[in-house]
Amino acid sequence: MHTTPPEQATEPAANESLRQKLNRIIFGWESPAGKLFDVCLIWAICISVLILMLESVEWIVRDYDLWLRTAEWTFTLLFTAEYIARVYCAKRRWEYVKSFYGIVDLLSILPSYLAFFIPGANNLLIIRLLRVLRIFRILKLARYLSEANLLMRTMLLARRKILVFFSSVLVLSVIFGSLMYMVEGPAHGFTSIPKSIYWTIVTITTVGYGDIVPQTVLGQIISAAAMLTGYSIIAVPTGILTAELAQEMQRDRYRRSCPGCKRSGHEADAAHCKHCGTALPQVQQR
Amino acid sequence: MHTTPPEQATEPAANESLRQKLNRIIFGWESPAGKLFDVCLIWAICISVLILMLESVEWIVRDYDLWLRTAEWTFTLLFTAEYIARVYCAKRRWEYVKSFYGIVDLLSILPSYLAFFIPGANNLLIIRLLRVLRIFRILKLARYLSEANLLMRTMLLARRKILVFFSSVLVLSVIFGSLMYMVEGPAHGFTSIPKSIYWTIVTITTVGYGDIVPQTVLGQIISAAAMLTGYSIIAVPTGILTAELAQEMQRDRYRRSCPGCKRSGHEADAAHCKHCGTALPQVQQR
Amino acid sequence: MHTTPPEQATEPAANESLRQKLNRIIFGWESPAGKLFDVCLIWAICISVLILMLESVEWIVRDYDLWLRTAEWTFTLLFTAEYIARVYCAKRRWEYVKSFYGIVDLLSILPSYLAFFIPGANNLLIIRLLRVLRIFRILKLARYLSEANLLMRTMLLARRKILVFFSSVLVLSVIFGSLMYMVEGPAHGFTSIPKSIYWTIVTITTVGYGDIVPQTVLGQIISAAAMLTGYSIIAVPTGILTAELAQEMQRDRYRRSCPGCKRSGHEADAAHCKHCGTALPQVQQR
Amino acid sequence: MHTTPPEQATEPAANESLRQKLNRIIFGWESPAGKLFDVCLIWAICISVLILMLESVEWIVRDYDLWLRTAEWTFTLLFTAEYIARVYCAKRRWEYVKSFYGIVDLLSILPSYLAFFIPGANNLLIIRLLRVLRIFRILKLARYLSEANLLMRTMLLARRKILVFFSSVLVLSVIFGSLMYMVEGPAHGFTSIPKSIYWTIVTITTVGYGDIVPQTVLGQIISAAAMLTGYSIIAVPTGILTAELAQEMQRDRYRRSCPGCKRSGHEADAAHCKHCGTALPQVQQR
Repeated sequence: MHTTPPEQATEPAANESLRQKLNRIIFGWESPAGKLFDVCLIWAICISVLILMLESVEWIVRDYDLWLRTAEWTFTLLFTAEYIARVYCAKRRWEYVKSFYGIVDLLSILPSYLAFFIPGANNLLIIRLLRVLRIFRILKLARYLSEANLLMRTMLLARRKILVFFSSVLVLSVIFGSLMYMVEGPAHGFTSIPKSIYWTIVTITTVGYGDIVPQTVLGQIISAAAMLTGYSIIAVPTGILTAELAQEMQRDRYRRSCPGCKRSGHEADAAHCKHCGTALPQVQQR
Repeated sequence: MHTTPPEQATEPAANESLRQKLNRIIFGWESPAGKLFDVCLIWAICISVLILMLESVEWIVRDYDLWLRTAEWTFTLLFTAEYIARVYCAKRRWEYVKSFYGIVDLLSILPSYLAFFIPGANNLLIIRLLRVLRIFRILKLARYLSEANLLMRTMLLARRKILVFFSSVLVLSVIFGSLMYMVEGPAHGFTSIPKSIYWTIVTITTVGYGDIVPQTVLGQIISAAAMLTGYSIIAVPTGILTAELAQEMQRDRYRRSCPGCKRSGHEADAAHCKHCGTALPQVQQR
Repeated sequence: MHTTPPEQATEPAANESLRQKLNRIIFGWESPAGKLFDVCLIWAICISVLILMLESVEWIVRDYDLWLRTAEWTFTLLFTAEYIARVYCAKRRWEYVKSFYGIVDLLSILPSYLAFFIPGANNLLIIRLLRVLRIFRILKLARYLSEANLLMRTMLLARRKILVFFSSVLVLSVIFGSLMYMVEGPAHGFTSIPKSIYWTIVTITTVGYGDIVPQTVLGQIISAAAMLTGYSIIAVPTGILTAELAQEMQRDRYRRSCPGCKRSGHEADAAHCKHCGTALPQVQQR
Repeated sequence: MHTTPPEQATEPAANESLRQKLNRIIFGWESPAGKLFDVCLIWAICISVLILMLESVEWIVRDYDLWLRTAEWTFTLLFTAEYIARVYCAKRRWEYVKSFYGIVDLLSILPSYLAFFIPGANNLLIIRLLRVLRIFRILKLARYLSEANLLMRTMLLARRKILVFFSSVLVLSVIFGSLMYMVEGPAHGFTSIPKSIYWTIVTITTVGYGDIVPQTVLGQIISAAAMLTGYSIIAVPTGILTAELAQEMQRDRYRRSCPGCKRSGHEADAAHCKHCGTALPQVQQR
C-alpha cells in the first residue's frame, strides 16, 4: 500500500506527453512499467550499498579494485540519470527538489562527484567521509517501507511523551555518571564526567560492554541501582507506544457507522452491521 | 489442544485394516496407544538430541565412544522405522512426504546414513556438518507445541509491521555501522563496514559483548545514540504484538460460526453475522 | 491486603485459650500484637540474611567471627521458637507443616542444626552448602508480598503460553548453539555443543558477557541473526502478559451490575451507576 | 502544560507591587517576561552543568582553568540571586523553601560556597564531592518536564505493584547470588555473597559486563536460568505500566467534573456522576 505523492499523475491519458509517461513510470507503481522500474531501483540501491561495504574490506579492494570502481561509477551515473529524470518529470519540480526524497536522491550521487573533483590524495579524511556518506543511498528505500505509516503516526502522537522519557534518561545518566566519577575516580577508568556519562548510558540501556567496570563496593552498589533503573524504565516507552497503538488501531474500526442503527465499532472486514444486520457501506481499500 | 492433520482417521472402525490401526496410533492421540506412542516419541527425540550434544564433549567421546555410537544408531534405526510407518499409513502419502513434518522427519535420519555412506576420514567438514544437522530432530517436537497456534496466528497478522520494523533496524545498522567505521577506523577494531555493522547489531540489540569498543570521543557519542535508539525501538515490536494479541485473544474467546455463511470470527457482542447479516446463536455467558 | 490462611482464628473470643491467643498473634495481623509480631519477624529475617552475607566476606569473618556466630545462633534459636509456636497454635497442625510456608520455616532452621551435628571439619562442601541454604529464609518474606496475588493470577492464566514461549527459546538455543559449534569450533571457544548453547542463551537474552565471541564472518552473521531473534521475541511474553493483565484488571470492574438498569462495567470507586444514577451496592474491601 | 504552583499570582493587577511583578515573572510563564526568564534559566542550567562536566576533563582544566572558575562563580552568583528573588517574592515563603524545588534550588548553590569557606587543600574528598554535587542543578529542569505528569501519575497508581516486582527481583538476586557463590566460589571471582549478588543483578538485568563469568558447568547452567528469568520478568513491569497507562489515558481524555459533588474522573460513556448520581454535562464528540 503506497501513499500517493503529489507529483504523480494517477490516470494514464490517451494522448499523454513523454513527461507524463515518464512521471507515471517513475513516480507511479500501478502500471507494469512502473512496477518494473521500482523493482529495478530497489535492486540497484541494495547492490550499490553492498559494493560500498565491500570497498571497506581490505583484501577485496586489493584484488578487485577495478571492478569496484567500475560498478561504483555505473551506479553513480545511473542514479544521476534517475535524479535528472525525476526532476524533469515531476509535476512541481521545485517541490520535489526540496522534499525529503529529493534531498536524499541528490545526496546519494553528490559525494561521488565531490570526491572526483576535489584534487589531492585519495586518502584524505574528507574524501573517505564523502565516500562513506554514499551509504545514505539506503534511505532511498524508505519510499517502499509504506506500512511504516501507522507506526510513524503512532510515534508522532506519542512524541512529547517519548521526548520527556528521553530527557529523563539523560538527566538520570548525568546524575549517575557524576556520582560514579566521584566514587570510582580516574584510577578505575572513569577518567572524566563525560566518559562516566557514556558508561552510564552503556549500563542503563543494558548494553554493558565491560570495557569500564566499577571496582569499589560503593561503585558496584550505585551501578546496580543504575541497572535496575534502566531495566525498569524500559517499560515506560513500551507502555506509551502500546497504549497509543491500541487506540490508533481501534480508531480505525470506529470510522464506519451502521446506516440502520447508527452504531459503530465494526471490524475492518465486516460487510454487515453486527448489531442489526444492515449492510454496511464498503471501505475503499487504501 | 491438537489440530487434526488431514492424514488422520478420527474414528476407529469395527473392522479396520492394519494400516488404519497404525494411522490411529501414529497420527492420532486420542486412543491410549496413540498417547503412549506420542510420549515415547517425545522421550526418544529428547534423548537423541542429548546424545548428539554429549558427542561434542571431548572427554565423553573418549570414554564412552561405543555407547554413543550404539545409541546413535539405535535412534537412527528407530526414527527410520517411524518414518517408513508414517509413509505407509498416511492417508495421502505424497502429501505427508511433502509436508513440513514429513521433511523434518526425513532430515532427522538422512545425515546419519549420508555420513555412513560417504567414504573418507570421519573428520571432514561435510561429515561433521551432517552429524550436527541431526540436531534438527528437535523440530519434530513442534508437533506438540500446539498452544503456539495463537502466537503464530498473531505474528502472521503482524508480519508486515514486523517486517517493516526489521528493515528499519537493518537500515539503522547500516547507517550507524558506516559512521562508526569512518569515525573509529581499522585501528580501533572497526576493520571494515560489514564488521562495523556486526558491531552495531551487537550494540542496538543491547547485547554488548565488548570485544570491539569505541575509543574516540565522537565514536562514544555516536554509539551512545545507537544504544539509546536500540533501547527505545524495542518498544515498537512489543507494542505491535501486544495490540494484535489483545484483539486476537478477545476474538478467540467467542469464536462462533454463522449458521448462514458458516464464517466465524464474530465479536462477543455481535447479534448478527458481520458477513451476511444472519442472526447469530447467542453465546451463554460464563 | 493479606489473604486469610485457614489456620487463623479471625475473631477474638472472650475467654480464649493461650493457643487461640498465640494463633491470633502469630497467624493474624489485625490485633496490635499481631502487627508488632509481623514487623519484628520481617526485621529478624532481613538481619539474619544480612549476617549470612557478611559471613562470606573474608575480612569480616576474620575480625568479627564471634559476633557473627553469636548472632547466627540467636536467630536460629529465635526461628526455632517461632516454628514450634506455629506448629503448636496452628488450627490444623499437619496441614501447616506440609504447607509451603511450613516447609520454608523448617528449612530456615534445619541447616544450622545439621551443620552443628555433622562432625568433621567446618570447611566441608556439604557444610558450606548447608550454611548458604539458610539464605532461603528470605522466602519467609513471601507471606508479606501479598500485592503479588494479581500478578500471580495473571501468570497462572498465561502459564501455557509462557511455557510454549520458553520451549521455543530453548529449541532456538539448541539449533543456534549447534550451528555455532559447527561454524566456529573448539578453536574459538565453542568447545562443545552444551557450551555453545550456554553462549546462545547469553546472546539471545541480550546479556552478552563477551567471554566467548564469534570470530569467523559466518559465525558473526549467525550470531547477528540470533541477537535480532532474541531482541524481537522478548515482545512475545510482554504481549501475552500485558493482554492478560489488561483483561484481568478489566474483569475486576465487571463484577458489579446496577440494580436499576442492570448494566455493569463500573469502576472500583463508583458509588452510583454511571448510566442511570442508581446507588450501587458497595464492594467489600478485601 | 504547566501545573500552577501555589506561589504564583495568576492574574496581573493594575497597581501591583514590585514583589507581585517579580512573582509573575519568576514563577509564572504566561507574560512575555516570564517566558524569557524561563528560557534564560534553562540555558543557564544546561551551560553550568556543561561547565561542571568540562571541569573533570584533565586537559581542559590545565588549559582553561581561569575561564572555568570565572564561569562557575558567575553561575553561582546568578543562581544565588535567583534563589533570593524566589524567596523574596514567593507568596508563602516558608512553603517554597521547604518544597522540592526550594531544596533543589538551595542545593544547587550551597556546594560552591561550602567548598570556598572550608579551609584546606582543594583536593580533599569532601570538596571534590561538594563540587560534583552541583550536578544536581540539572534537577531544576524538572520544573519544565511537565508532560511527565501523566507518566508520574501512572507510576504512582502502579507503585505497589512495581514495589512487589522490585522486591521479587531482589529476592531472586539474593537466592541466585548465594547459589553462584556456593557453586563457583572465590577462585572464579565470586569472592563473597554481596559480590555474587552484584553479579546476579548484572546478569538478570541483561547488562552482562563480563568482568565476572561462570566457569564451571553447573555455574553456567544456573546463570542460564538466571538470564532466562531476567529476560522473561521484564515483561511484568511492562505489562503493569501498559495496562495502567491505557486506563489513565482513556480517563484523561474525557476528564469532566460533576456539577453536584465537583468530583471528576468519569468515563467517556458516563451520563451520571458515579459518586453522587447527578446528571453530567455531555461531552461533545470530537
